Amino acid sequence: MSASTALLTDRYELTMLDAALRDGTAQRRCVFELFARRLPGGRRFGVVAGTGRLLSLLREFCFGDDELKFLRDEKVVDAATVSFLEGYRFSGTITGYREGELYFPGSPVLTVEGTFAEAVILETLALSVLNHDSAIATAGARMSIAAGDRPLAEMGSRRAGESSAVAAARAAYITGFGATSNLEAGRRWGVPTMGTAAHAWTLLHDSEEDAFRAQVEALGTDTTLLVDTYDIAEGVATAVRVAGTALGGVRIDSGDLPIVAAQVREQLDALGASQTRITVTSDLDEYAIAALAASPVDAYGVGTSLVTGSGTPTAGMVYKLVARQDAAGGWVSVAKASADKSSKGGRKAAFRTLDAGTATSELIAVSDGFEQLETAAAHPDARALQTQLVVEGEIDTTAEGADGVAVARAHHARVREELPVRALALSRSDPAIPTVYIDA
Amino acid sequence: MSASTALLTDRYELTMLDAALRDGTAQRRCVFELFARRLPGGRRFGVVAGTGRLLSLLREFCFGDDELKFLRDEKVVDAATVSFLEGYRFSGTITGYREGELYFPGSPVLTVEGTFAEAVILETLALSVLNHDSAIATAGARMSIAAGDRPLAEMGSRRAGESSAVAAARAAYITGFGATSNLEAGRRWGVPTMGTAAHAWTLLHDSEEDAFRAQVEALGTDTTLLVDTYDIAEGVATAVRVAGTALGGVRIDSGDLPIVAAQVREQLDALGASQTRITVTSDLDEYAIAALAASPVDAYGVGTSLVTGSGTPTAGMVYKLVARQDAAGGWVSVAKASADKSSKGGRKAAFRTLDAGTATSELIAVSDGFEQLETAAAHPDARALQTQLVVEGEIDTTAEGADGVAVARAHHARVREELPVRALALSRSDPAIPTVYIDA
Repeated sequence: MSASTALLTDRYELTMLDAALRDGTAQRRCVFELFARRLPGGRRFGVVAGTGRLLSLLREFCFGDDELKFLRDEKVVDAATVSFLEGYRFSGTITGYREGELYFPGSPVLTVEGTFAEAVILETLALSVLNHDSAIATAGARMSIAAGDRPLAEMGSRRAGESSAVAAARAAYITGFGATSNLEAGRRWGVPTMGTAAHAWTLLHDSEEDAFRAQVEALGTDTTLLVDTYDIAEGVATAVRVAGTALGGVRIDSGDLPIVAAQVREQLDALGASQTRITVTSDLDEYAIAALAASPVDAYGVGTSLVTGSGTPTAGMVYKLVARQDAAGGWVSVAKASADKSSKGGRKAAFRTLDAGTATSELIAVSDGFEQLETAAAHPDARALQTQLVVEGEIDTTAEGADGVAVARAHHARVREELPVRALALSRSDPAIPTVYIDA
Repeated sequence: MSASTALLTDRYELTMLDAALRDGTAQRRCVFELFARRLPGGRRFGVVAGTGRLLSLLREFCFGDDELKFLRDEKVVDAATVSFLEGYRFSGTITGYREGELYFPGSPVLTVEGTFAEAVILETLALSVLNHDSAIATAGARMSIAAGDRPLAEMGSRRAGESSAVAAARAAYITGFGATSNLEAGRRWGVPTMGTAAHAWTLLHDSEEDAFRAQVEALGTDTTLLVDTYDIAEGVATAVRVAGTALGGVRIDSGDLPIVAAQVREQLDALGASQTRITVTSDLDEYAIAALAASPVDAYGVGTSLVTGSGTPTAGMVYKLVARQDAAGGWVSVAKASADKSSKGGRKAAFRTLDAGTATSELIAVSDGFEQLETAAAHPDARALQTQLVVEGEIDTTAEGADGVAVARAHHARVREELPVRALALSRSDPAIPTVYIDA
C-alpha cells in the first residue's frame, strides 16, 4: 500500500486539471477558501480541528509510480497531465485559523493560494480532514462545557472507522477531554490513554469475585472495577470486599445513571469507600452529561455520541474559488450564485472583535488586494484569526505532530474563555456571535 | 508511520490481556460474537460490510518494535505481556456472514474463536470496521432501493474522514451504487470512478461559455456540464449552444430539484437535446431520491447523507464473550445481564428461513457444543448464513481485495431479492423479519 495521499481525491479535480492544462487556465493564480456556510445542528459555535493532520497529509500528497499508473490505466487524465503530476508538490501558500480556534458561518478557516492546477486538487483532502475533525471537536467542546471540572475520557473508537477513530481521539483531546482509550492516538499524537477492563473480563472468570481479584492483583487497588455485568449492588459489594475501601473506582456502563449513580455512591459510602470514584460510560452525550451535573459522578467516558459528532457527523465545510487572475494577470473576485449555496467572492482577513475579553463578532474584511487587508489587520479591538500554515510550499512544522496537538489544546482552552455566556447553552440556536463583513 | 494495525485498539484489551496472563485465564479458549442488539434508526434490515477490509487489516495486526516500545514506555503492559505480543499472530478461527449479506438483531455477524489472549484484543478493530462499513452499506442499500433502475454515484468523500471516505465508497458499491468520485477506492477496491467538473471550473473562466467550451474540447460532447453556477436556464442554453444537441448530460447541484429537473427537461427537449441526461446531486438522501421518482431525472449523485449513514453513522454492533472454557476445560455459555444491554450466551449457527424464495425469519440455533449446531444446519427450508473467514489463523484470501468486493456486490444483489416487500419501505419500523432462537 502506497503512503501517498494523492488519490484521496475526487476524480473531477483531475478532470478539471486535465482540461485546464489544455486551455491554458491551469496557470492562473487562484484563491480557494474553505469555510462553513452555516453551523449544522444548531450549534452556537464551531471548533476548527484537523489542521495539523492536514499538513502532514499534504506532505505525502505526491504522485508516485503507482498513482500515475492507475490514472493512466483508467484514462483519468492524458499524458500531459501525467507529466505535470509526476513533479507535483504544492508550492503555494496556505493561511488558516489556528487549530483549536472557534469558527462561525463564513469564517475563512483555510485559504489556499496557488495556481489553479496546484490548488484545485487539494479540495477533497482538505475537506475530508477538516469536516470530520471539526465536527468531532465541536461536539467535544460542548461535552467539555457540560462536564465542567469533571474529567472526560474518549472511548468511541469502536463506533468509528478505524482511522477516523484515531483522528476523533485527537480532536476530543484538543477540546478538553483528558484521555482516550485509543492506543494509536497515544502513540501518534501524544494523547494520554486509559482503560482497565470490559465485561468480557468478568465473564471469562468463574465468578465476578475471581475477576475482580485478578484485576486488583494485576493493577493494584487504585484500579477501576466494572460493576454492572450482573447485579450492580452485588458488584459494588464484591468490589469493596476484594479491593478494600481504598478501591480507586467503579465503572457503571448501563441503567438509569442518575438513579444508579446515587445508589452506588450511597452504598460505597456505607461500606466506608468514600474516596472510591464513580465513572459512568453508558451512551453519554452532552445532554446526558449535563443531566448528571448534580449526581455523584466523578468522571465520564464518552463513545458513540462523540465520534459521530453528536448528531452532526460532518461540519459541512466547502472549498470554493473566491478570487483568480484574469487573462491579463489582474485579480477578479468570483462567486457562485446557486440557490441556497451562494458564496462570497474575494480574499478575506478575519478577526474576532472583543469587548472586555468577550467575543462580540466575527469580523471579515473582504478585498481584491492584499494591501487593503493589511490595513484591516490594524483593527484595534480585534484578534487576528489567521496564521500562515504553508508559505511557498514550506509547511509550518510546529503545527504537526504531538507538539501541534498540545499547542492546539492550549489555544482552544484560551479562546473558549472568550465565548459569551449564551454560547455555552446546549440547545439549538443561532451562532453566538454575528459574522460581519466589511469592505477593506 | 508503521503499517501495523495493532494499536487500533482500546487500551483495556491489553490491560485485560496483561492480567489474564498473570492469573492463567489467558489460555482459556473463548468464543466472542460480534452482533447488533437492534437496528438503529428504525431500519428494517442491515447490510454487512467491511469483512474483506477487516481480513486485510487482520493480516497487519502484529506488534513490531515501534508498537512494543510504545506499550513499554507508556507502561500499558508488563514485560511478560510484551513477550507474548512480540510473537502474536491470530491463530484462531473466525466465521461470519458473507460480506453484502443482510443482518437482523442478534445475527452473529462475526464469531471469533481462540484463546482469550488472542481473541480479546481484536475487539476494537473488528467493531470499528464493521460498525462503520455496515452503517454506510445499510444506508446505501436503502438509497439503491429508492433509486430503482436509475444509476447512483457516491460522491461524499469530502464529508467523511479521509480513510473512512474510501471505505464508504467501497460499501456503497457493494450495495448497488455504480461508481464513486473517490480515486483511491478505484485503485484499492476496483470501484469504477466518475466525475467531470466543479463550480470552480466555471468560476475560473471569464465566462460560463468559455468554461463549457474548454470542457467539451477536453472531454468530448458526451461529457456532463454543471449548469447551476449562475442561472440554470441560461446555463442550459449555453451548454446546448456550445456542445450541440448531442450533449451527454447536465448536472444540477442546487434548488428545488423536482421543479428544476422538470424545467430543465422541458428546456432541453425544446432545444432538441432530448437525449441529454439530467444528473442531480444536491443533498440527496433516500427520501429525496424517492421523492424524485416521478421527475425526469436520469442519475443521482449522493454525498453527505450516504457517508454519514443517513442519520445512523454507526451500526451499533458489539463484541461479546458468549462461551468459554472453565478451569477443567469444559465449555460454559456466558452472558451479561446489564439493564438493556444483556447478551445471549452460547455458540450460534444462523440461517435465513425462506418461503418460496422470500425470507421469513432469522433462525439462530444456540448451543454449547458444535455437534448440535451441525444438526441444526440440516434445516430444510433455510439458507446457512455463516462462512469460514479464518481457519486456524489462515485468512480466506478470496474475501479480500477487489475480487472480494465484486463477490460481495453480487451476493448483496442476490440476497436482497429475498427481502419481503415490507422491508423495502423507507419509514422507521421494526425489523422486516423476526429473529427466532432455537436450542440446538
